[in-house]
Formats: sequence, C-alpha cells, structure tokens
Amino acid sequence: MDFLNQLKTDTKIVEDWLFELSPKGDGYHSIIFESANYSISNGGKRIRPILAMEVCKLFGGDLENVKHFACALEFIHTYSLIHDDLPCMDNDDLRRGKPTNHKVYGDAIAVLAGDGLLTYAFETVLKSPCHKRAEAGLCLAKLSGFDGMVGGQVIDIKGATDKEMLIDLHKRKTGALICAGAYLGALSADAAQKDIDNVTQFAENLGLAFQIKDDLLDVLGDEKTLGKPVGSDMDKQTFVDFYGIDKATEKLNEISEKAKDIISCYGDKSKFLTELTDYLINRNY
Amino acid sequence: MDFLNQLKTDTKIVEDWLFELSPKGDGYHSIIFESANYSISNGGKRIRPILAMEVCKLFGGDLENVKHFACALEFIHTYSLIHDDLPCMDNDDLRRGKPTNHKVYGDAIAVLAGDGLLTYAFETVLKSPCHKRAEAGLCLAKLSGFDGMVGGQVIDIKGATDKEMLIDLHKRKTGALICAGAYLGALSADAAQKDIDNVTQFAENLGLAFQIKDDLLDVLGDEKTLGKPVGSDMDKQTFVDFYGIDKATEKLNEISEKAKDIISCYGDKSKFLTELTDYLINRNY
Repeated sequence: MDFLNQLKTDTKIVEDWLFELSPKGDGYHSIIFESANYSISNGGKRIRPILAMEVCKLFGGDLENVKHFACALEFIHTYSLIHDDLPCMDNDDLRRGKPTNHKVYGDAIAVLAGDGLLTYAFETVLKSPCHKRAEAGLCLAKLSGFDGMVGGQVIDIKGATDKEMLIDLHKRKTGALICAGAYLGALSADAAQKDIDNVTQFAENLGLAFQIKDDLLDVLGDEKTLGKPVGSDMDKQTFVDFYGIDKATEKLNEISEKAKDIISCYGDKSKFLTELTDYLINRNY
Repeated sequence: MDFLNQLKTDTKIVEDWLFELSPKGDGYHSIIFESANYSISNGGKRIRPILAMEVCKLFGGDLENVKHFACALEFIHTYSLIHDDLPCMDNDDLRRGKPTNHKVYGDAIAVLAGDGLLTYAFETVLKSPCHKRAEAGLCLAKLSGFDGMVGGQVIDIKGATDKEMLIDLHKRKTGALICAGAYLGALSADAAQKDIDNVTQFAENLGLAFQIKDDLLDVLGDEKTLGKPVGSDMDKQTFVDFYGIDKATEKLNEISEKAKDIISCYGDKSKFLTELTDYLINRNY
C-alpha cells in the first residue's frame, strides 16, 4: 500500500478506536460527555495514536495491546487543546475551523471537560489488556505532567526569550506527548529497551520538526487551509522569530533528516514512519 | 492513644508523606511547582489520606503500600479545589483563610497547576510499591472522573433543583473521592472484596454526612473559624434549602449512624473510624 493510502487506513482505524473508547454516559451531568466528544471528534491529524500504532507494528506487536494507549494519547492531546484555548490561556475562538469548546459550552464546562478527559486517559490506559499498562500509565503521566507537556505550556505562557528556552518549551509542550506515542507503541509490543530508546529519540526529533513546521505555517500558511487566522501566534516568539524563515527551514530539514536516520536501522519496516516524517514537514495545514 | 492524639499523629504522618512525595523540579517552568505546592501545603483536614491510611491499618496492611495512594488522593483533592476556585467556576478569592491559587499565580498558572497535580496523582499511584497499583489507579480514575468527582462538579455548576439531584451531586463531588480513600486503603492491605465493599459503603455515607455538615456550617458557622465568608454558597441550593436546618441535622445524624453501623462488625479495630465520623459531623470548621 502506498503511504497516503496507509495513512488513510490508519486514520480510519484510530477513528474507530476513538469512537469505541470515547467517554460515554448519562445522568444529570451528561452535558460533559457531549462537550468532551465535541472536541474529540473535531478532526485533527491523530498523529500521536497513529505513531503509537505504527511503532507497535514496527516491533511486531498486537494492535489490541496498543488500542487503549493510542486513544489515551489522543484524549490527553484533546484535553490540552481545550485548556490551551481558554480565555485565561491562549483565548482562541477557533480550532480547526470550528468554535472552541468553551465558545460552545462555556468556560466552566470546558475546564471540566479537560479535567475529565485527562482523568479518563488514565482510566483508558489502565483498562488496556496489555500487561505493561501500569508502566504505560507511568510513562504517560511523566511525559504529560509538570516536567512534560504541562511544563511546556507554562513556558509558553511566560514566553520564550531565547533559542534554548524555545527548544525547551517545544520539547515539553509538543515533543513530550509525541515521544509518549512512540514509547507506548514500543511498550505495547514488548520492545527491547534499546528499541524503546531509539523510537523515542526518533519521536523527539519528529516533534521538534513538527513544531518548526507549525511556526513556518503560521507565517506562510493559508488561513482557510489552516482553520485558524495566519499570524495568530504573532505575540509569541517562534522559531521564525529567532532563526528567520530560511534558517528555520534549514533547521526543519536537518532535524527531520536526523529523525529518519535514527530509524533507518529498521530498514523497510520503518518505511511508513520515514514517509510520515516527510509528510508532516511538507504539510500545508 | 485517645482519638485526638491519634488524629494528630495521623495528620503528621500524612504531612510528612506529602512533603516527601509532592512535586519538585526546576527549569524554566519552575513556577508551576511553587504554585502546586502553595495549594498542597495550605492546611486542609487531610481526610482522604487519613481515611486511606486508617483503612489500610484496619485490614492489617503495610503503611508503605498506602503512602503513595494517600498522597495521590490529596493531590486530586487539591487540584479540584484549585479549579473549583477559578473565576469561571466558583470564583472564590479565599480558601482556608488564604488567597486562592489563581489570586496568587494568575488564572493560567492555576489551570496548569491543577492539570499538573491531576496528572501527577496518577504518576504517584503508579510509583507505589503496592502490587495493586494499576487497580488503584483505575479506581481513582473512575471515582474522580466524568462519572465521579468531575461529574459532581458539572451538576454543581448547573445547580441542583431537587433533593434527588442534590444527593447525586454530592455523592459524586465529595463522596466519590472519599470512597476512593477507603477503596485504596483496602486495596493497599489486600483486603477481601466483601471488606472493600463494606468500607466503601461506610465512606459513601461518611461523605454524604460530611457534605450535609458543610451546608449546615455555611449557614450556622463562624466566618473566622471557617476561613471563608458564611453564606458564601448562598446562590447554590443546599441540604438546608431542601430540608431546613432541623431536618438536615436529623439527616446528618441518621446517615452518620448508618456509616458507623456498617463498620461496627470490625469491633474495636474500627474505633478510630467511628470516632472520626463523630468528629467530622461535630466539627465547627
């Protein structure tokens, strides 16, 4: 199967998993399920779950063992977007071309939908049939917590004032959860420690390349394709601010080459992940 | 040892545990550790961890197995208070007589301190030496998530319009995490299923009694002792609104008797929990 068809197939599998494992319930509090699912179902590239699934496949794992981990990654990613969009954070009205969660459900429900999804991500991981579920939960907590994604968001709010700080910001804010995708995928396949380290390092570079591309798109992209106003991160220092467009593009290519090089040892088995890297750094949305 | 001395000893142990296991770190995002610890260290009765510890002891467990669970319960409780106090939620400026987290660190950091603490609670549970840590994490997620504490907060925001809804609200908002305290304490001691069920049922009644007492204190209490303005929940329907002071007091006694009755089968071993129940429903803060 060629790359784009494989990506389409993977995306469909992930969408089905998310549909199956997304939070459901009724009662006086049923609005919270509606709010959470509004954000889960609002498109997105599903990079983290697809990465987990493909890493699981790379190491010969059973997809049933990665399913819950893949969904948990997306639930955490979704909660972080809901909270990031809040008026007291980035104050964004649009996300992927649709009104943000708090614009539809109000700030209080949006805070709680985020809290609920974060909690539910751990419920989902710990319900996995994979015997490494406790280890997976611990890894997910570390990479999405104070020293991971949450820490990155803290730095983002303060604003990065130099290159080193900007890289630290993105390694945490975007990179950590992408690393978690690779890590959990490898765990689900009972991969050896050196393979876990390898794919995590690949993911770290992929995450950074992904973010540089994001910054470039924010300057060069098309509003309609992006689903958000171009220059909407104008008040934040980005890779383009610190490096300029040409240098940032150069860095993007350098880092993505490094990422691909790390997994080249798996030969043809890592073909999809290599093509995914190229796809993500060449995307226009 | 008499009850008050035992409570003092227990509280000291829990404070030491919290000091040991509270989130620590540095880097560009270090403010988040300060913010989280500001709220963790702001007093509180430590009911949930003490309950977990005492239930562990009731079933002859090793305190090392309950330590991480106890702290995780308090981290979840703390995050929920930080988020509940936000302007878009209850908009409270004071908590236990001190400025609330967002008043000191701003709304954005308060949201993230809550997110971080919630995530860190699962990290803490999954670092426990107790071999039931994965089961404990799953229980904690269920009881603090959409159908537990978060769901209760959703109903609280909507406002309860009748007795049934009010009871549902409090069973989730306060009751669920108190139940988790008992459940995790029992798990840490490898208690039998019937004992787990027993103490969870005890905790459910204790939680409800605790909340009715809270509502009564909000009408009858002393502002200085409470650390918050009397009548601050005025815009919300409470047990006092639906039952009146006399009937609510009657219900408080009835439910606390039921709680004590459930654990009476353990004889002298449950003496502390019985006295804790009396202590909590007779408290004036």
